[in-house]
Order: sequence, then C-alpha cells, then structure tokens
Amino acid sequence: MDKRAIGVFDSGLGGLTTVRELHQLLPGEEIVYFGDTGRVPYGSRSAETIVKYARQDVAFLRTFDLKAIVIACGTVSTTALEVLAAENPMPVLGVVAPAAQAAARATRNGTIGLIGTQASIRSGAYERLIRQENPGARVLAQPCPLFVPLVENGRFRRGDIVIETMVAEYLAPLKEAGVDTLVLGCTHYPLLEEVIAAYMGPQVRLINAGAEGARAVAEALSRGDALSPAAEGRYRYFVSDRQADFSHLASIFLGWEVAESAVGQVDISRY
Amino acid sequence: MDKRAIGVFDSGLGGLTTVRELHQLLPGEEIVYFGDTGRVPYGSRSAETIVKYARQDVAFLRTFDLKAIVIACGTVSTTALEVLAAENPMPVLGVVAPAAQAAARATRNGTIGLIGTQASIRSGAYERLIRQENPGARVLAQPCPLFVPLVENGRFRRGDIVIETMVAEYLAPLKEAGVDTLVLGCTHYPLLEEVIAAYMGPQVRLINAGAEGARAVAEALSRGDALSPAAEGRYRYFVSDRQADFSHLASIFLGWEVAESAVGQVDISRY
Repeated sequence: MDKRAIGVFDSGLGGLTTVRELHQLLPGEEIVYFGDTGRVPYGSRSAETIVKYARQDVAFLRTFDLKAIVIACGTVSTTALEVLAAENPMPVLGVVAPAAQAAARATRNGTIGLIGTQASIRSGAYERLIRQENPGARVLAQPCPLFVPLVENGRFRRGDIVIETMVAEYLAPLKEAGVDTLVLGCTHYPLLEEVIAAYMGPQVRLINAGAEGARAVAEALSRGDALSPAAEGRYRYFVSDRQADFSHLASIFLGWEVAESAVGQVDISRY
Repeated sequence: MDKRAIGVFDSGLGGLTTVRELHQLLPGEEIVYFGDTGRVPYGSRSAETIVKYARQDVAFLRTFDLKAIVIACGTVSTTALEVLAAENPMPVLGVVAPAAQAAARATRNGTIGLIGTQASIRSGAYERLIRQENPGARVLAQPCPLFVPLVENGRFRRGDIVIETMVAEYLAPLKEAGVDTLVLGCTHYPLLEEVIAAYMGPQVRLINAGAEGARAVAEALSRGDALSPAAEGRYRYFVSDRQADFSHLASIFLGWEVAESAVGQVDISRY
C-alpha cells in the first residue's frame, strides 16, 4: 500500500481524458495534475523543445511526494519518455507502449492505422513498439495537426462539417488501405471517438491511448502493491495559464465539474 | 538619419506579413525579427501570460541596437502595448491604433466589423480607439480562435471547405449587421484576405492591421528623421523553436525565401 499521490501531466487539457479513466479504475488514488496551458500545444514543436518543456513539467510535479509519474500526453510519451524515465527515481509511465501493445494484439489483418500529432508521428515510437510485439504488422501513420486546436475549440461533435471534413481528409488513406485497428495516439482524441468511429465504420477497432495508459498504471501499481487504501482520492489541478480558462473546458474532458478554487497557477518557466 | 535596426516581433509567423509591408515601404531598413514559435499562439492565453511573454520578447530584441520596436501582433498590441511603451526608452509601435484610425475614417455607414483573437477582442482596445476617432461608430467584434491554427496549417485558400465554413460561421453576424468596413485585427489574417473578401462581398472595405501598422512606422521614422540611408537593409530572424520549421512556412508569409542559415534560435525563457 502506498498513499502517495500520482503525478499526471499533459501539454494542456487532453490528459484529463486519462485522469477520467484513472478515476474509474482507481477511485482511491490521489492525483496531482499539471496542464501546461501557457505553452500548449506541444505536438507541432521540435523534439528539443518538447523535451525541455517536459523536464520542467516533471520538476514541478516532483515538488509533491509522488509514487509515480504518468505522461498523459501522446507527444511527450513518444518524444521524451526515455529521458524522463532515466532522470527520475520513480516509475514514469507513458501512453505509447500500452496502446502499441493493445493494437498489435487487436489486429486481425495485420494492418494498423495510427493518428497523432506531428511530433508523435515523427518520433516513430508507436511503430517501433507495435513491431516489437507483432513484427509482421504494417503500420500506416497519419499526423493530424488540426485535431488538437479543433477539439480545444469545441469542434468534436457529429454533424460539424469542419471536424467531419478534417476527419475524412486525414483518415481517408487509412480507410482505403483497409486498416482494421486504429490507434488514437493523442489524449485529445477520445473526444473525437464518435466522429472517427462513424467515418471508419464498425469493423475498425479504435485503441484509445489514454485509456490503455491508465490501465497500465493500474496494473503497475497493483503489481508493486502500491495502490492507495483510501476510498476516495483527492484531486488537485495546476496550470501555467489562468485558472478560469482551464476550469471551463476541463469539465468537458473530465465529465465532472472543476471549481476554479481547486486549480492553482504555476510559473512553469522557473522549474 | 539613423542606421540602427528596427526590432519586430510576433507570437509566431503572422508578423512576417508586417515585415513584408515594411520591406515594400522601407527597403533600406535593417530588421531584426523575433517569432516566439516555441510558445505560439498567444491569442488564446490570458492577459497576464501575454504581458509576461511580450516583455521577454522585447528584452531579447533589446540585446540589439534598435531605434524602434514594432509589435507585429494584434494580440500583443491590444494587450501589452502600454506596458511595453512605458518600460522602454524608444518608440514602441503597435498595429491597433493605425488600423482603428483607418477603419474609423473608411466607414460610410458607421458600422465597423472587427475580427481578432480572443485576447484581442477581450481587451476592447480596437473599439476604444475607433470610438476616439469616430464617436458615433458602432463596432461589432467577433473572436476567431481557429483562424491562426488554420492559417499556420496552410488552410487559407479559396475552395477549402474547412476555412470557407469557418469564415462563413465567424463572419455571418457581421455580414448580416451590414458592416461596410472590416478590421483584420491579427497579422495572420492577411493570408485570409481572398476568402474573406469573397464572403463579405466587394462593398465591404477590408482594413489590414499589419499593413496599417507598417505605414505608421514609416511615417513615424520619417517624421523623426530616423530613416536609414541604406539602399537595401539586412534581415535577421530569430525563433524560440527549431529554425527548420520556421524557414519552411516563413516564405509563404513573406513572399520570399528564407534560408535556414539566416535564422537563429533563442531560449526566450531566459530573458
């Protein structure tokens, strides 16, 4: 048993979809969340910049007494996980390996689609891990740079011509190639699940990287006998931009209300 | 006569449309440009964060010997100009006052439309300056948070259903209200001029904030006898993310090629 908190971070709001999954699996865990809303998005930036920002995010989280750090961000998981794991004396868990494993096992025809930010796709991390698990798999990767800004502007509902056009444009090559499994490689994408499922059709299995990541966290803590004995965990949220702007959108990502008073502001450039 | 450089900055690439205008008006001036590509966009962030970032941008530019600073960014001009002007012992020129003046003079029916980022609209700066010039004018303001990410992803051409849908959605209330003048209050928007003009119709006069800003700079330098005697000025570019990603898109905004070797990288959080 371990009562200490789990530190979770993302470039902004997307990681809250992973927090929602963690809450379902592990309601007793204490969570400290950091969203780098002052510097979001990460997915269009260079690897050097992403590593620099991720190190600062972790340095801030480590001002709390943590038992594990969860990278609830596809971009940071693909681009900075190895550096962060090597530099920190505690488990650092990302969303890429669990999602790659799930996809490698789910495919029937061996053709897997992958969508993510430009930085995630450029890293090649998902492909590498999928092939480790299933060397015969063919992976078709498609960067979707507009999905994060569209989701953050509330454009994720069916019938919205803008998101439906972008989904069709980005996913057409994967659909034509006959993928039977599609990795949603960014923690913003669960909000697009309905639109994507409608476009790809029921025969395509969607793998949600954030949900797979949360499941892997639950397994790792359970294996290490590090689950919390509490019935209901405490949740604290920190952001690098204004709290008010965060609590407004956060409820959409989490599925529950976040009071502005539960959110703190951090000058992340000082870490 | 004054041979010193003009410092120009923006949250990212948009300010290059102002540099293009400056080059046409003042080809002999030396320009030092800073684009904060590691933290773009600014327009969705809080006023506090924008002021903090803008101060760092100016602190970097002032490591050069400058005769003036041009804020080639609607968001910073609306939100931080007064602070920056008070703190720096040289002219600090923005794009808002010149565009507001041009719009106030151009309108025939007294109904002016204004589009910009969320932060620009929230500041109320354009409305205040338009009414100073033309107290009877009615200003209809519309934030367009998706225009910057769409433009930076190359979605600015006529016939693109995504940008045409967003233009129609954002501008419909202004068109219906019968504005005869529309301020493009963000330096990214000149790339949307064709799509916007086609939607609004030929009777609506478009005011390009970046171009008006460039004209005001030329007038101010000329009035102060501070123009450069050179025939052809030197251009230097600095960014806070990777140079390669910048030089690729910069040519679209500038209208001429920028070699990667002409671009420097800056750790802006140290300023």
